[in-house]
Amino acid sequence: MVNEEIMKSLAVKTESKIVLLVADGIGDLPSENNKTVLEKAFIPNLDKLASKSACGLTDPISYGITPGSGPAHLSLFGYDPIKYQIGRGVLEALGIGMELTSDDLACRGNFATMDKEGIIIDRRAGRIATELNEKICRIMQDKISQIRGAEIIIRPGMEHRFVVVFRGKGLEEGLSDADPQVVGQKLKYTEPLRPEADEAAKIINEFIDKAIEVLREQSPANAVLLRGFAKHPALPTMGELFKLSPAAIATYPMYKGLAKLVGMEILEAGETIEKEFKTLKENYQKYDFFYLHIKKTDSYGEDGNFKKKVEIIEEVDKYIPELLILKPDVLVVTGDHSTPAILKGHSWHPNPFMLFSKYIRVDEVKQFNERECVKGGLGRFSAVDVLPLMLANALKLRKFGA
Amino acid sequence: MVNEEIMKSLAVKTESKIVLLVADGIGDLPSENNKTVLEKAFIPNLDKLASKSACGLTDPISYGITPGSGPAHLSLFGYDPIKYQIGRGVLEALGIGMELTSDDLACRGNFATMDKEGIIIDRRAGRIATELNEKICRIMQDKISQIRGAEIIIRPGMEHRFVVVFRGKGLEEGLSDADPQVVGQKLKYTEPLRPEADEAAKIINEFIDKAIEVLREQSPANAVLLRGFAKHPALPTMGELFKLSPAAIATYPMYKGLAKLVGMEILEAGETIEKEFKTLKENYQKYDFFYLHIKKTDSYGEDGNFKKKVEIIEEVDKYIPELLILKPDVLVVTGDHSTPAILKGHSWHPNPFMLFSKYIRVDEVKQFNERECVKGGLGRFSAVDVLPLMLANALKLRKFGA
Repeated sequence: MVNEEIMKSLAVKTESKIVLLVADGIGDLPSENNKTVLEKAFIPNLDKLASKSACGLTDPISYGITPGSGPAHLSLFGYDPIKYQIGRGVLEALGIGMELTSDDLACRGNFATMDKEGIIIDRRAGRIATELNEKICRIMQDKISQIRGAEIIIRPGMEHRFVVVFRGKGLEEGLSDADPQVVGQKLKYTEPLRPEADEAAKIINEFIDKAIEVLREQSPANAVLLRGFAKHPALPTMGELFKLSPAAIATYPMYKGLAKLVGMEILEAGETIEKEFKTLKENYQKYDFFYLHIKKTDSYGEDGNFKKKVEIIEEVDKYIPELLILKPDVLVVTGDHSTPAILKGHSWHPNPFMLFSKYIRVDEVKQFNERECVKGGLGRFSAVDVLPLMLANALKLRKFGA
Repeated sequence: MVNEEIMKSLAVKTESKIVLLVADGIGDLPSENNKTVLEKAFIPNLDKLASKSACGLTDPISYGITPGSGPAHLSLFGYDPIKYQIGRGVLEALGIGMELTSDDLACRGNFATMDKEGIIIDRRAGRIATELNEKICRIMQDKISQIRGAEIIIRPGMEHRFVVVFRGKGLEEGLSDADPQVVGQKLKYTEPLRPEADEAAKIINEFIDKAIEVLREQSPANAVLLRGFAKHPALPTMGELFKLSPAAIATYPMYKGLAKLVGMEILEAGETIEKEFKTLKENYQKYDFFYLHIKKTDSYGEDGNFKKKVEIIEEVDKYIPELLILKPDVLVVTGDHSTPAILKGHSWHPNPFMLFSKYIRVDEVKQFNERECVKGGLGRFSAVDVLPLMLANALKLRKFGA
């Protein structure tokens, strides 16, 4: 991608509409009968669309690099994922649906078990039940609401995990983890790695002391380990960079959070794929860019559940005709990264990609899957080029130079 | 490739094993019956491997750029060849098998002929015989062993060429060539191009004066021209960057030297292809990364000897089954650059490439050659991405971001 300044100077506001449909982790490796999920699935509508589209394969970061959801999505949204690295704490907060502001410093927490000498003997407090976690977080929140002028916001996650947000002016990142990482060592405090983080370190360490005080009677959850301290990053919005009015349709908090980071409007999209497509239809007149996110292709990939991953993409396929009725000027269908069922996790393999618009060179790809996309006219390219390509096909980019 | 800091943070040590088989200069241009060397050769084992691999084409540097062996190999080893430029003097020293240390400043030398007025009248001293070169180098070495505290090491090359290494603390590069480049001009001294190189310049110029003194009776080899002054570069090792324990199996000094520069262990590999594969087998348990280098595909390419280049790759093909018996987790077969027989030299054409592992999307390539690899699922990519890709397929890379 050309740099942000050039993109800014080329982008123009127009009436044309772009839909980016992301089937999370859709890319797969051959497994059942040597087929991938896309090859196995009955997806006549996606296949038909592929035969009328320009296809290819995209790399979220670069060859061999397996991305997390954060960097993989930033790439697709047109942001350099190396330049804009979002800290763990922020992603975790977004993941449980917290709303962050530019004054926030967030971190991930574990409840842990500490013995009488202050030695950590279980970094996960025996993986306490989520209900107990919720109760303990409420108790902590009641007792600890403010430290040195900063607001403290505590939210439970699953089992032993929680998130703390320190909200206040001048709280900077650059802090070591307050986590010994191994059992058999003492509880650890954070240390500022640069002078700007001094005040934040004081607040965090005071929080740790107060938390231990509150948790005294809560064994096994009688200590906290905090890590991944990160400030809410100030990203330029998609409006500023690309002159878009973008909206996000997603069911999971993490993706809503990521979309919000780049300035998308978050639409109420329920919990089903049906409701997501309905949301698109209902809001189609109000925005010029739609990010529609399908989560469960990834979830079932992570579970190693090939069959269910197939079912999800078959369900998505059913909604393609009504999406096409909206006549988007540009429609892209792709993944953010691959989640092969046989790997039960994200992988480094490129994403199948297709772009449908009036101004493409249709290629020889007749089916939407990994092997067919190899033959695509778009070749193999960086996911960070997807956004410029969509803008171009929507006639939203001026000529560069004269 | 992502930057070195990120690679460092993602790489993990595992038991899995990687073999990188480099047939030097294997890439070719169609000549005999419009076939390239790989198309002409009978290579059933490599073809069979291609049909089970992910294939593609790699560019050592970038489109149109013909690389020397140094940058082409650095790329394959995962080092940015633009960032790490190794000076000619160092490559020349490595090429004749000299062992360099971090205190060394090396240069290439020519014996030349100077007339009574000090004018250079032959820059190659009539291309004196290598035996005479060796004799003269011994005489020089006897008379000149130290200057201003620096050790002087002189080694003969072929014909009129030799190498001088200046070994001492604080000898820095940044020196002009002590070579008029054309005949009819006076013998030239080096000049420091930056203050740090002042001391080195004094030593080098004193060396030139002493050499002329020693060579007074050795006409036509009565002068020395020195160029390509370069310090032994301190590259991070493959162990530091990628957490590998790498070993090199090569028959030519230059490649052993390059491998040593990036921290590989150099295995005793004899002089034949048979012995090289035997060395791999014997040492297979001791390392987790093997670089196996076949030199003669390049040598015969440089000679324009199409037939012999075919024979060499056919010989390599015979050893593929016993390599596969070792069950490497990742096996890559490729070249470092192309050396088309009709060009009699290195060229800018991309390298045929195949990667075999458990976690690939097998593509439609059925034969290992330039034209087939165009259809490969890996597409056309930078050689500097080969190492990350091998690490990923060996499950030696963590996820980037969350």
